[in-house]
Amino acid sequence: MQKDSPIIKLKSFPKLPKINGFRLSSCNANIRYGDRHDLMLAEFVSGTSVGGVMTRSQVIGAPVIWNKKIIPNGKARALVVNSGVANVFTGKEGDLTVHNTANKVSKELNCNSDEVFIASTGTIGEYLDSNKITSKVGMLLANLSKNNWENSANAILTTDTFPKGASQSCQIDGKKVQIAGIAKGSGMIAPDMATMLAFIITDANLSSNIIQELIENGNEKSFGCITVDSDTSTSDMLLMFSTNQAKHNRIIDKGDPRLKDFTAALNMVLVDLAKKIVIDGEGAKKFIQINVSGAVSHISAKKIGLSIANSPLVKTAIAGEDANWGRIVMAIGKSGEPIQTEQINVSIDSFLLASGGKRVNEINEVKLAEYLKRDFIEISVRVGDKNGESTVWTCDLTHDYISINADYRT
Amino acid sequence: MQKDSPIIKLKSFPKLPKINGFRLSSCNANIRYGDRHDLMLAEFVSGTSVGGVMTRSQVIGAPVIWNKKIIPNGKARALVVNSGVANVFTGKEGDLTVHNTANKVSKELNCNSDEVFIASTGTIGEYLDSNKITSKVGMLLANLSKNNWENSANAILTTDTFPKGASQSCQIDGKKVQIAGIAKGSGMIAPDMATMLAFIITDANLSSNIIQELIENGNEKSFGCITVDSDTSTSDMLLMFSTNQAKHNRIIDKGDPRLKDFTAALNMVLVDLAKKIVIDGEGAKKFIQINVSGAVSHISAKKIGLSIANSPLVKTAIAGEDANWGRIVMAIGKSGEPIQTEQINVSIDSFLLASGGKRVNEINEVKLAEYLKRDFIEISVRVGDKNGESTVWTCDLTHDYISINADYRT
Repeated sequence: MQKDSPIIKLKSFPKLPKINGFRLSSCNANIRYGDRHDLMLAEFVSGTSVGGVMTRSQVIGAPVIWNKKIIPNGKARALVVNSGVANVFTGKEGDLTVHNTANKVSKELNCNSDEVFIASTGTIGEYLDSNKITSKVGMLLANLSKNNWENSANAILTTDTFPKGASQSCQIDGKKVQIAGIAKGSGMIAPDMATMLAFIITDANLSSNIIQELIENGNEKSFGCITVDSDTSTSDMLLMFSTNQAKHNRIIDKGDPRLKDFTAALNMVLVDLAKKIVIDGEGAKKFIQINVSGAVSHISAKKIGLSIANSPLVKTAIAGEDANWGRIVMAIGKSGEPIQTEQINVSIDSFLLASGGKRVNEINEVKLAEYLKRDFIEISVRVGDKNGESTVWTCDLTHDYISINADYRT
Repeated sequence: MQKDSPIIKLKSFPKLPKINGFRLSSCNANIRYGDRHDLMLAEFVSGTSVGGVMTRSQVIGAPVIWNKKIIPNGKARALVVNSGVANVFTGKEGDLTVHNTANKVSKELNCNSDEVFIASTGTIGEYLDSNKITSKVGMLLANLSKNNWENSANAILTTDTFPKGASQSCQIDGKKVQIAGIAKGSGMIAPDMATMLAFIITDANLSSNIIQELIENGNEKSFGCITVDSDTSTSDMLLMFSTNQAKHNRIIDKGDPRLKDFTAALNMVLVDLAKKIVIDGEGAKKFIQINVSGAVSHISAKKIGLSIANSPLVKTAIAGEDANWGRIVMAIGKSGEPIQTEQINVSIDSFLLASGGKRVNEINEVKLAEYLKRDFIEISVRVGDKNGESTVWTCDLTHDYISINADYRT
């Protein structure tokens, strides 16, 4: 990795702020890994609002079924997350584990069980013994702290190689507001949504309908724009909690202009976490940003971008440090989106490789080869003369992806 | 590879029949590879009918543009195919190469240029010098023979590791009819169509509208059911030529019952070639058949099958000889098709791994591990209680796929 790589900064866990009304802790519940933390619990002050987006897969885990049911209430007091076993495709036993967990936590916190959010990530089809979780709840509650960010971010990892966190602050009514989040995910990553868990906490004073709107829009611009391997998980979720402890007046109207700075800060946190998931893509050696312009719409540009980002042939070419722009053209074509062939331009960094529907003959191959050795690769394509634009992120496809996934379960 | 593997037979080039009204030859035109045949020419007797299916990519090569224009005429006298350079994304120069080739051949054969079909496969974006082809036409015509199948099948290969041929015979009106074909393709393979070239020749006496109907239906059941890496080529094509030399009475009506045996024989040839392309998938070590049943329709079953077949996580698990059926469930879910979770069954060979929406506890892991070492793996999933069924074919995703594609151009 080159010294000035933007990747180094993205891979380090940032200092995350204390957020009023929010504490967390983690422990080793010995679910699968043995020698590391694999369970976290977050506690929210009474009155915390919540919103979220769940996987669009047709096969969903017991925790996703549970959260989908309780999100509309808009109220949260706790979040319990385990790694190691995903509690997916486990039938009634899977549902029972979720209910037992929610009941135990709600009893301890003296709240309703439908204020307890649950997430699990790991192997599909294995049973998750609820005793492993409920027996640890007392200890987790005893150890709650505003500072336990990094341990908790570690506890939710599976094949990830580093914990992922991000934060921003902004002002509403002249009062400081904090936004922080943690995420996990490195394989089974594709839009609709990425295979990932992400939890955002803010002290902003927002009603749950506002949170739902902000998180749906933000997801489309962040986790909806990344792909590692085109596979979609049964367990994806993005939840956002607002403890409502900030000193500004409560926001309840989606059109409130005071949301502008907050939305921008929130989207920065979401994009930051999304990029970190791609950087940690299984086996990834290079982070790839793909900019699409000239498409008939934003949606069309995004589909073209994801078609490029999901192409194994493009991803292996980048892994091989090969400027094989023909494969990029192929991926534009297979998207099925309207394009104008004779206006296609393809660039890698500032190197124009194809222009006006043909190859460019004068390319500084030496400098291009040098650029391709970097770990941050930017591809830009223009597909016509319309105004649709989008940026998506992915990683290269390497031997390590094969090694990681050919041996995961056994 | 185990001794009784069905793969061994599929990898060997079969003896293909002589077909009246059809001859072919090949040579080294030194387009890219240097030391092997890379150009073939087929000559058809005057009066030959033709039909075909072309890639649905939005970016298509000059030969595809040309063939799309001349197919509706329904008449063919020649087919010229080169490997090494795909003549895609080459602007007006690319069109000129096609025109020069067609003009040269039509002059020599004393036919119209729109009876000369062209195909190119190889690198995208490189110019194809028409002189390299036109200078060889005389020699190719001088060497035409009914027996040059295997040399010609070799001349159209790119990253393929073996030539692909298939044949069947049947009777129409008590007269023997031959069907034979050759194909190439091993990377950039996905439906709509597979990245591949396939050419079918028969002496059946069929009008071109019949051929078009047969080849569209047959493609949906064969090349439309295979995937190697989910990428779609700019150059795919499936062409079928009938020299009309068989002694039966001409068939001009799509509903003619005499087509029944012929259609079955044709589809066997198409499926045979399609399977050979998957077996030769870049880096493939295992051939995977996926049977889907219980879906709401055939189309839905096929989409679910292709979602499983395109999943990198499923393909790497099979490469790792790991019965990770959770990933199969994930791929069913991400298809977006209607399914009934509590009715999902997943089997590998005769081993039932999940049933009624849950894992099966009693699995003979030793025998299953033994089965997974084979090079032909059959996965069967039931996704509900409806009647939609489909079978699709793919291969595993291995380190060799990465090696082949990270170094292809350089």
